[in-house]
Amino acid sequence: MKIGVIGAGNVGGTLGRLWAARGHQVLFGSRDPGQERMQELARGAGAQAGTVAEAASFGEVVVLATPWHGTQEAIAAAGSGLNGKVLIDATNPLLPNLAGLAVGTTTSAAEEVAGWAPRARVVKAFNTIGAGYFANPTFDGQAASLFICGDETAAKEVVAGLGAALGFDVVDAGPLKNARLTEQLAMLWIDMTYLRQAGPIAFRLLRRPH
Amino acid sequence: MKIGVIGAGNVGGTLGRLWAARGHQVLFGSRDPGQERMQELARGAGAQAGTVAEAASFGEVVVLATPWHGTQEAIAAAGSGLNGKVLIDATNPLLPNLAGLAVGTTTSAAEEVAGWAPRARVVKAFNTIGAGYFANPTFDGQAASLFICGDETAAKEVVAGLGAALGFDVVDAGPLKNARLTEQLAMLWIDMTYLRQAGPIAFRLLRRPH
Repeated sequence: MKIGVIGAGNVGGTLGRLWAARGHQVLFGSRDPGQERMQELARGAGAQAGTVAEAASFGEVVVLATPWHGTQEAIAAAGSGLNGKVLIDATNPLLPNLAGLAVGTTTSAAEEVAGWAPRARVVKAFNTIGAGYFANPTFDGQAASLFICGDETAAKEVVAGLGAALGFDVVDAGPLKNARLTEQLAMLWIDMTYLRQAGPIAFRLLRRPH
Repeated sequence: MKIGVIGAGNVGGTLGRLWAARGHQVLFGSRDPGQERMQELARGAGAQAGTVAEAASFGEVVVLATPWHGTQEAIAAAGSGLNGKVLIDATNPLLPNLAGLAVGTTTSAAEEVAGWAPRARVVKAFNTIGAGYFANPTFDGQAASLFICGDETAAKEVVAGLGAALGFDVVDAGPLKNARLTEQLAMLWIDMTYLRQAGPIAFRLLRRPH
Protein backbone atom coordinates (compact mmCIF):
# COMPACT_ATOMS: atom_id res chain seq x y z
CA MET A 1 0.00 0.00 0.00
CA LYS A 2 1.17 3.58 -0.64
CA ILE A 3 1.14 5.58 2.57
CA GLY A 4 1.73 9.32 2.90
CA VAL A 5 2.76 10.60 6.32
CA ILE A 6 2.14 14.25 7.16
CA GLY A 7 4.07 15.34 10.22
CA ALA A 8 7.17 13.22 10.51
CA GLY A 9 7.74 13.61 14.25
CA ASN A 10 7.50 10.89 16.83
CA VAL A 11 4.12 9.47 15.84
CA GLY A 12 4.38 9.88 12.07
CA GLY A 13 8.03 8.88 11.93
CA THR A 14 7.40 5.70 13.88
CA LEU A 15 4.35 4.65 11.87
CA GLY A 16 6.08 5.33 8.58
CA ARG A 17 9.17 3.38 9.60
CA LEU A 18 7.15 0.40 10.82
CA TRP A 19 4.92 0.23 7.79
CA ALA A 20 7.85 0.63 5.41
CA ALA A 21 9.53 -2.29 7.18
CA ARG A 22 6.40 -4.32 6.47
CA GLY A 23 6.62 -3.67 2.75
CA HIS A 24 4.44 -0.60 2.30
CA GLN A 25 5.64 2.34 0.21
CA VAL A 26 5.97 5.38 2.45
CA LEU A 27 6.47 9.06 1.65
CA PHE A 28 7.14 11.43 4.56
CA GLY A 29 5.76 14.90 3.87
CA SER A 30 7.01 18.01 5.63
CA ARG A 31 7.27 21.74 5.14
CA ASP A 32 11.00 21.36 4.53
CA PRO A 33 11.68 18.00 2.89
CA GLY A 34 15.29 18.99 2.18
CA GLN A 35 16.25 19.20 5.83
CA GLU A 36 18.80 16.68 7.05
CA ARG A 37 16.46 15.09 9.60
CA MET A 38 13.83 14.33 6.96
CA GLN A 39 16.38 12.89 4.57
CA GLU A 40 17.81 10.67 7.30
CA LEU A 41 14.39 9.52 8.41
CA ALA A 42 13.42 8.58 4.87
CA ARG A 43 16.74 6.90 4.13
CA GLY A 44 16.71 4.93 7.38
CA ALA A 45 13.17 3.78 6.75
CA GLY A 46 13.62 2.89 3.09
CA ALA A 47 11.08 5.61 2.33
CA GLN A 48 10.87 8.86 0.43
CA ALA A 49 10.73 12.47 1.63
CA GLY A 50 8.67 15.17 0.01
CA THR A 51 6.34 18.06 0.59
CA VAL A 52 3.08 17.82 2.44
CA ALA A 53 1.21 18.05 -0.85
CA GLU A 54 3.33 15.23 -2.28
CA ALA A 55 2.64 12.99 0.72
CA ALA A 56 -1.08 13.62 0.34
CA SER A 57 -1.07 12.89 -3.38
CA PHE A 58 1.19 9.86 -2.99
CA GLY A 59 -0.74 7.98 -0.35
CA GLU A 60 -3.69 5.73 -0.81
CA VAL A 61 -3.75 6.16 2.94
CA VAL A 62 -2.52 9.41 4.50
CA VAL A 63 -1.54 9.73 8.14
CA LEU A 64 -1.99 13.10 9.80
CA ALA A 65 0.43 13.29 12.74
CA THR A 66 1.01 16.98 13.21
CA PRO A 67 1.18 19.05 16.38
CA TRP A 68 -2.31 20.42 16.89
CA HIS A 69 -1.32 24.02 16.22
CA GLY A 70 0.04 23.04 12.81
CA THR A 71 -2.80 20.79 11.77
CA GLN A 72 -5.06 23.19 9.93
CA GLU A 73 -2.14 24.61 7.99
CA ALA A 74 -0.91 21.13 7.07
CA ILE A 75 -4.30 20.20 5.69
CA ALA A 76 -4.37 23.37 3.66
CA ALA A 77 -0.91 22.51 2.31
CA ALA A 78 -2.05 18.97 1.48
CA GLY A 79 -4.81 20.43 -0.65
CA SER A 80 -6.78 18.33 -3.09
CA GLY A 81 -4.35 15.45 -2.69
CA LEU A 82 -6.50 14.37 0.24
CA ASN A 83 -9.67 14.07 -1.80
CA GLY A 84 -11.10 10.60 -1.50
CA LYS A 85 -8.20 9.38 0.62
CA VAL A 86 -8.33 7.45 3.85
CA LEU A 87 -6.96 10.08 6.23
CA ILE A 88 -5.82 8.70 9.59
CA ASP A 89 -6.11 11.49 12.12
CA ALA A 90 -3.61 10.69 14.87
CA THR A 91 -3.59 14.18 16.35
CA ASN A 92 -4.55 15.18 19.85
CA PRO A 93 -5.58 18.80 20.41
CA LEU A 94 -3.35 19.38 23.42
CA LEU A 95 -3.16 22.56 25.40
CA PRO A 96 0.29 23.84 26.35
CA ASN A 97 1.90 21.93 29.24
CA LEU A 98 -0.51 19.02 28.66
CA ALA A 99 -3.09 20.96 30.62
CA GLY A 100 -5.94 19.33 28.77
CA LEU A 101 -7.53 19.46 25.35
CA ALA A 102 -7.89 22.65 23.37
CA VAL A 103 -11.28 21.67 22.01
CA GLY A 104 -14.31 19.92 23.33
CA THR A 105 -13.73 20.05 27.06
CA THR A 106 -14.91 22.61 29.52
CA THR A 107 -16.06 20.75 32.63
CA SER A 108 -17.27 17.41 34.00
CA ALA A 109 -20.07 16.05 36.10
CA ALA A 110 -17.60 15.59 38.95
CA GLU A 111 -16.55 19.22 38.88
CA GLU A 112 -20.18 20.30 38.84
CA VAL A 113 -20.87 17.98 41.76
CA ALA A 114 -17.92 19.41 43.67
CA GLY A 115 -19.27 22.88 43.01
CA TRP A 116 -22.67 21.90 44.36
CA ALA A 117 -21.21 20.06 47.38
CA PRO A 118 -18.19 22.23 48.14
CA ARG A 119 -17.51 20.72 51.54
CA ALA A 120 -17.63 17.09 50.44
CA ARG A 121 -14.48 15.21 49.43
CA VAL A 122 -15.54 14.22 45.95
CA VAL A 123 -13.96 11.20 44.27
CA LYS A 124 -14.99 10.12 40.77
CA ALA A 125 -15.32 6.34 40.46
CA PHE A 126 -17.56 3.46 39.40
CA ASN A 127 -18.71 5.31 36.31
CA THR A 128 -16.79 3.61 33.51
CA ILE A 129 -18.43 0.18 33.57
CA GLY A 130 -21.97 -1.07 34.00
CA ALA A 131 -23.24 -2.02 37.43
CA GLY A 132 -23.88 -5.53 36.15
CA TYR A 133 -20.13 -6.13 36.39
CA PHE A 134 -19.53 -4.70 39.86
CA ALA A 135 -19.96 -8.11 41.52
CA ASN A 136 -17.46 -9.77 39.23
CA PRO A 137 -15.35 -7.31 37.26
CA THR A 138 -13.12 -9.99 35.78
CA PHE A 139 -13.02 -10.60 32.04
CA ASP A 140 -11.26 -13.70 30.78
CA GLY A 141 -8.99 -13.68 33.81
CA GLN A 142 -8.29 -9.93 33.73
CA ALA A 143 -9.72 -7.49 36.25
CA ALA A 144 -11.33 -4.39 34.81
CA SER A 145 -9.71 -1.15 35.93
CA LEU A 146 -11.49 1.20 38.29
CA PHE A 147 -10.39 4.71 37.35
CA ILE A 148 -10.41 7.02 40.37
CA CYS A 149 -10.12 10.81 40.17
CA GLY A 150 -9.97 13.14 43.13
CA ASP A 151 -8.07 15.97 44.73
CA GLU A 152 -7.46 14.38 48.13
CA THR A 153 -5.25 11.34 48.60
CA ALA A 154 -6.89 10.06 51.77
CA ALA A 155 -10.34 10.17 50.21
CA LYS A 156 -9.09 8.34 47.13
CA GLU A 157 -7.54 5.65 49.29
CA VAL A 158 -10.88 4.96 50.90
CA VAL A 159 -12.54 4.55 47.52
CA ALA A 160 -9.62 2.47 46.26
CA GLY A 161 -10.15 0.05 49.13
CA LEU A 162 -13.84 -0.23 48.38
CA GLY A 163 -13.14 -0.91 44.73
CA ALA A 164 -10.37 -3.41 45.38
CA ALA A 165 -12.70 -5.34 47.68
CA LEU A 166 -14.98 -5.91 44.69
CA GLY A 167 -12.13 -7.26 42.63
CA PHE A 168 -11.33 -4.18 40.55
CA ASP A 169 -7.87 -3.23 39.41
CA VAL A 170 -7.67 0.25 40.94
CA VAL A 171 -6.07 3.02 38.87
CA ASP A 172 -5.27 6.49 40.19
CA ALA A 173 -6.40 8.63 37.29
CA GLY A 174 -5.32 11.92 38.81
CA PRO A 175 -7.18 14.97 40.09
CA LEU A 176 -10.91 15.46 40.04
CA LYS A 177 -10.58 17.51 36.88
CA ASN A 178 -9.57 14.29 35.14
CA ALA A 179 -13.16 13.14 35.50
CA ARG A 180 -13.44 15.02 32.20
CA LEU A 181 -11.42 12.14 30.81
CA THR A 182 -12.95 9.21 32.64
CA GLU A 183 -16.48 10.43 31.97
CA GLN A 184 -15.68 10.30 28.28
CA LEU A 185 -14.32 6.82 28.79
CA ALA A 186 -17.64 5.98 30.38
CA MET A 187 -19.39 7.44 27.37
CA LEU A 188 -17.31 5.19 25.14
CA TRP A 189 -18.34 2.20 27.23
CA ILE A 190 -21.98 3.25 27.04
CA ASP A 191 -21.82 3.95 23.33
CA MET A 192 -20.17 0.63 22.49
CA THR A 193 -22.41 -1.34 24.81
CA TYR A 194 -25.79 0.15 24.00
CA LEU A 195 -25.44 1.65 20.55
CA ARG A 196 -22.94 -0.77 19.03
CA GLN A 197 -23.77 -4.03 20.84
CA ALA A 198 -20.12 -4.72 21.53
CA GLY A 199 -21.11 -7.33 24.12
CA PRO A 200 -19.75 -7.53 27.64
CA ILE A 201 -16.79 -5.14 27.72
CA ALA A 202 -14.60 -3.26 30.15
CA PHE A 203 -11.44 -1.21 30.09
CA ARG A 204 -8.18 -2.22 31.65
CA LEU A 205 -4.99 -0.31 32.07
CA LEU A 206 -2.15 -2.47 30.81
CA ARG A 207 1.24 -2.00 32.42
CA ARG A 208 4.76 -3.06 31.69
CA PRO A 209 7.85 -2.90 33.92
CA HIS A 210 9.91 0.25 33.45
CA MET B 1 -17.56 1.21 57.26
CA LYS B 2 -20.83 3.16 57.16
CA ILE B 3 -21.84 3.84 53.58
CA GLY B 4 -24.71 6.03 52.41
CA VAL B 5 -26.01 5.47 48.90
CA ILE B 6 -27.88 8.30 47.16
CA GLY B 7 -29.76 7.07 44.13
CA ALA B 8 -30.67 3.44 44.62
CA GLY B 9 -31.03 2.47 40.99
CA ASN B 10 -28.83 0.07 39.09
CA VAL B 11 -25.45 1.50 40.09
CA GLY B 12 -26.24 2.52 43.64
CA GLY B 13 -28.33 -0.56 44.35
CA THR B 14 -25.60 -2.88 43.19
CA LEU B 15 -22.80 -1.14 45.08
CA GLY B 16 -24.84 -1.02 48.27
CA ARG B 17 -25.77 -4.69 48.04
CA LEU B 18 -22.21 -5.77 47.37
CA TRP B 19 -20.70 -3.69 50.14
CA ALA B 20 -23.36 -4.78 52.61
CA ALA B 21 -22.53 -8.39 51.76
CA ARG B 22 -18.93 -7.62 52.62
CA GLY B 23 -19.85 -6.44 56.10
CA HIS B 24 -20.27 -2.68 55.61
CA GLN B 25 -23.29 -0.87 57.05
CA VAL B 26 -25.34 0.56 54.19
CA LEU B 27 -28.19 3.04 54.13
CA PHE B 28 -29.98 3.62 50.82
CA GLY B 29 -31.31 7.17 50.52
CA SER B 30 -34.13 8.14 48.20
CA ARG B 31 -36.83 10.76 47.82
CA ASP B 32 -39.42 8.19 48.85
CA PRO B 33 -37.88 5.71 51.29
CA GLY B 34 -41.29 4.21 52.05
CA GLN B 35 -41.81 2.86 48.57
CA GLU B 36 -41.94 -0.91 48.25
CA ARG B 37 -38.92 -1.11 45.94
CA MET B 38 -36.69 0.70 48.43
CA GLN B 39 -37.87 -1.43 51.31
CA GLU B 40 -37.21 -4.60 49.32
CA LEU B 41 -33.81 -3.45 48.22
CA ALA B 42 -32.79 -2.64 51.77
CA ARG B 43 -34.25 -5.84 53.20
CA GLY B 44 -32.63 -8.01 50.53
CA ALA B 45 -29.29 -6.35 51.07
CA GLY B 46 -29.37 -6.40 54.85
CA ALA B 47 -29.29 -2.60 54.72
CA GLN B 48 -31.46 0.32 55.77
CA ALA B 49 -33.62 2.68 53.73
CA GLY B 50 -34.01 6.36 54.46
CA THR B 51 -34.12 9.83 53.03
CA VAL B 52 -31.35 11.34 50.96
CA ALA B 53 -30.40 13.52 53.92
CA GLU B 54 -30.25 10.47 56.17
CA ALA B 55 -28.02 8.62 53.74
CA ALA B 56 -25.68 11.58 53.61
CA SER B 57 -25.53 11.93 57.39
CA PHE B 58 -25.19 8.20 57.94
CA GLY B 59 -22.27 7.51 55.63
CA GLU B 60 -18.63 7.93 56.37
CA VAL B 61 -18.54 7.38 52.63
CA VAL B 62 -21.45 8.53 50.46
CA VAL B 63 -22.06 7.24 46.94
CA LEU B 64 -23.81 9.54 44.50
CA ALA B 65 -25.47 7.39 41.84
CA THR B 66 -28.30 9.54 40.56
CA PRO B 67 -29.49 10.15 37.00
CA TRP B 68 -27.75 13.31 35.88
CA HIS B 69 -30.92 15.41 35.75
CA GLY B 70 -31.59 14.62 39.42
CA THR B 71 -28.07 15.13 40.69
CA GLN B 72 -28.12 18.77 41.69
CA GLU B 73 -31.43 18.33 43.50
CA ALA B 74 -30.13 15.24 45.33
CA ILE B 75 -27.10 17.13 46.56
CA ALA B 76 -29.32 19.93 47.77
CA ALA B 77 -31.46 17.36 49.61
CA ALA B 78 -28.37 15.78 51.15
CA GLY B 79 -27.43 19.15 52.59
CA SER B 80 -24.81 19.53 55.28
CA GLY B 81 -24.69 15.77 55.79
CA LEU B 82 -22.11 15.72 53.01
CA ASN B 83 -19.73 18.05 54.76
CA GLY B 84 -16.35 16.44 55.18
CA LYS B 85 -17.53 13.17 53.68
CA VAL B 86 -15.87 11.08 51.01
CA LEU B 87 -18.41 11.50 48.21
CA ILE B 88 -18.07 8.98 45.40
CA ASP B 89 -19.46 10.55 42.25
CA ALA B 90 -20.56 7.68 40.02
CA THR B 91 -22.72 9.81 37.76
CA ASN B 92 -22.35 10.34 34.05
CA PRO B 93 -23.90 13.46 32.55
CA LEU B 94 -25.69 11.69 29.72
CA LEU B 95 -27.74 13.37 27.05
CA PRO B 96 -31.09 11.79 26.15
CA ASN B 97 -30.78 8.68 23.96
CA LEU B 98 -27.12 8.33 25.00
CA ALA B 99 -26.29 10.94 22.39
CA GLY B 100 -23.25 12.09 24.30
CA LEU B 101 -22.44 14.03 27.42
CA ALA B 102 -24.45 17.01 28.56
CA VAL B 103 -21.41 18.87 29.80
CA GLY B 104 -17.88 19.32 28.67
CA THR B 105 -18.03 18.12 25.08
CA THR B 106 -18.60 20.14 21.97
CA THR B 107 -16.24 18.83 19.30
CA SER B 108 -13.02 16.91 18.67
CA ALA B 109 -9.83 17.27 16.71
CA ALA B 110 -11.11 14.64 14.29
CA GLU B 111 -14.29 16.56 13.58
CA GLU B 112 -12.28 19.74 13.05
CA VAL B 113 -9.97 17.84 10.71
CA ALA B 114 -12.95 16.48 8.79
CA GLY B 115 -14.27 20.01 8.47
CA TRP B 116 -10.97 21.22 7.10
CA ALA B 117 -10.58 18.22 4.74
CA PRO B 118 -14.19 17.61 3.77
CA ARG B 119 -13.41 15.29 0.89
CA ALA B 120 -11.03 13.02 2.82
CA ARG B 121 -12.24 9.86 4.52
CA VAL B 122 -11.11 10.66 8.03
CA VAL B 123 -10.47 7.86 10.53
CA LYS B 124 -9.31 8.58 14.07
CA ALA B 125 -6.62 6.19 15.23
CA PHE B 126 -3.15 5.84 16.74
CA ASN B 127 -3.79 8.66 19.19
CA THR B 128 -4.37 6.84 22.48
CA ILE B 129 -0.90 5.45 23.09
CA GLY B 130 2.62 6.78 22.64
CA ALA B 131 4.51 6.13 19.45
CA GLY B 132 7.17 4.34 21.46
CA TYR B 133 4.79 1.40 21.71
CA PHE B 134 3.71 1.19 18.07
CA ALA B 135 6.42 -1.36 17.23
CA ASN B 136 5.44 -3.66 20.09
CA PRO B 137 2.08 -2.81 21.59
CA THR B 138 2.03 -5.85 23.89
CA PHE B 139 2.01 -5.47 27.65
CA ASP B 140 2.60 -8.55 29.77
CA GLY B 141 1.17 -10.73 27.02
CA GLN B 142 -1.82 -8.51 26.28
CA ALA B 143 -2.11 -6.41 23.12
CA ALA B 144 -3.08 -2.79 23.63
CA SER B 145 -6.32 -1.79 21.92
CA LEU B 146 -6.31 0.49 18.91
CA PHE B 147 -9.52 2.51 19.09
CA ILE B 148 -10.75 3.45 15.62
CA CYS B 149 -13.47 6.02 14.93
CA GLY B 150 -14.84 6.89 11.52
CA ASP B 151 -17.96 7.30 9.46
CA GLU B 152 -17.04 4.96 6.62
CA THR B 153 -16.68 1.21 7.09
CA ALA B 154 -14.31 0.62 4.19
CA ALA B 155 -11.93 3.34 5.37
CA LYS B 156 -11.97 1.95 8.89
CA GLU B 157 -11.16 -1.52 7.58
CA VAL B 158 -8.05 -0.20 5.89
CA VAL B 159 -6.87 1.40 9.11
CA ALA B 160 -7.79 -1.71 11.09
CA GLY B 161 -5.55 -3.77 8.84
CA LEU B 162 -2.66 -1.37 9.29
CA GLY B 163 -3.09 -1.47 13.05
CA ALA B 164 -3.47 -5.22 13.27
CA ALA B 165 -0.24 -5.61 11.30
CA LEU B 166 1.57 -3.82 14.11
CA GLY B 167 0.12 -6.17 16.70
CA PHE B 168 -2.68 -4.00 18.03
CA ASP B 169 -6.01 -5.34 19.22
CA VAL B 170 -8.30 -3.33 16.93
CA VAL B 171 -11.50 -1.91 18.40
CA ASP B 172 -14.26 -0.26 16.39
CA ALA B 173 -15.10 2.70 18.58
CA GLY B 174 -17.93 3.99 16.41
CA PRO B 175 -18.41 7.08 14.27
CA LEU B 176 -15.94 9.91 13.87
CA LYS B 177 -17.83 11.90 16.47
CA ASN B 178 -16.63 9.35 19.01
CA ALA B 179 -13.16 10.79 18.62
CA ARG B 180 -14.48 13.11 21.33
CA LEU B 181 -14.24 10.06 23.54
CA THR B 182 -11.00 8.54 22.34
CA GLU B 183 -9.21 11.89 22.37
CA GLN B 184 -10.08 12.15 26.04
CA LEU B 185 -8.76 8.62 26.50
CA ALA B 186 -5.59 9.84 24.86
CA MET B 187 -5.50 12.75 27.27
CA LEU B 188 -5.78 10.29 30.15
CA TRP B 189 -2.85 8.34 28.76
CA ILE B 190 -0.84 11.52 28.36
CA ASP B 191 -1.76 12.80 31.79
CA MET B 192 -0.88 9.55 33.54
CA THR B 193 2.29 9.05 31.56
CA TYR B 194 3.76 12.53 31.68
CA LEU B 195 2.20 14.20 34.70
CA ARG B 196 1.77 11.19 36.98
CA GLN B 197 4.70 8.98 35.92
CA ALA B 198 2.49 5.91 35.76
CA GLY B 199 5.17 4.08 33.79
CA PRO B 200 4.62 2.22 30.53
CA ILE B 201 0.85 1.94 30.18
CA ALA B 202 -1.80 1.28 27.57
CA PHE B 203 -5.53 0.69 27.42
CA ARG B 204 -7.15 -2.56 26.46
CA LEU B 205 -10.78 -3.37 25.88
CA LEU B 206 -11.60 -6.49 27.87
CA ARG B 207 -14.30 -8.77 26.51
CA ARG B 208 -16.30 -11.67 27.79
CA PRO B 209 -18.50 -14.10 25.89
CA HIS B 210 -22.17 -13.11 25.74
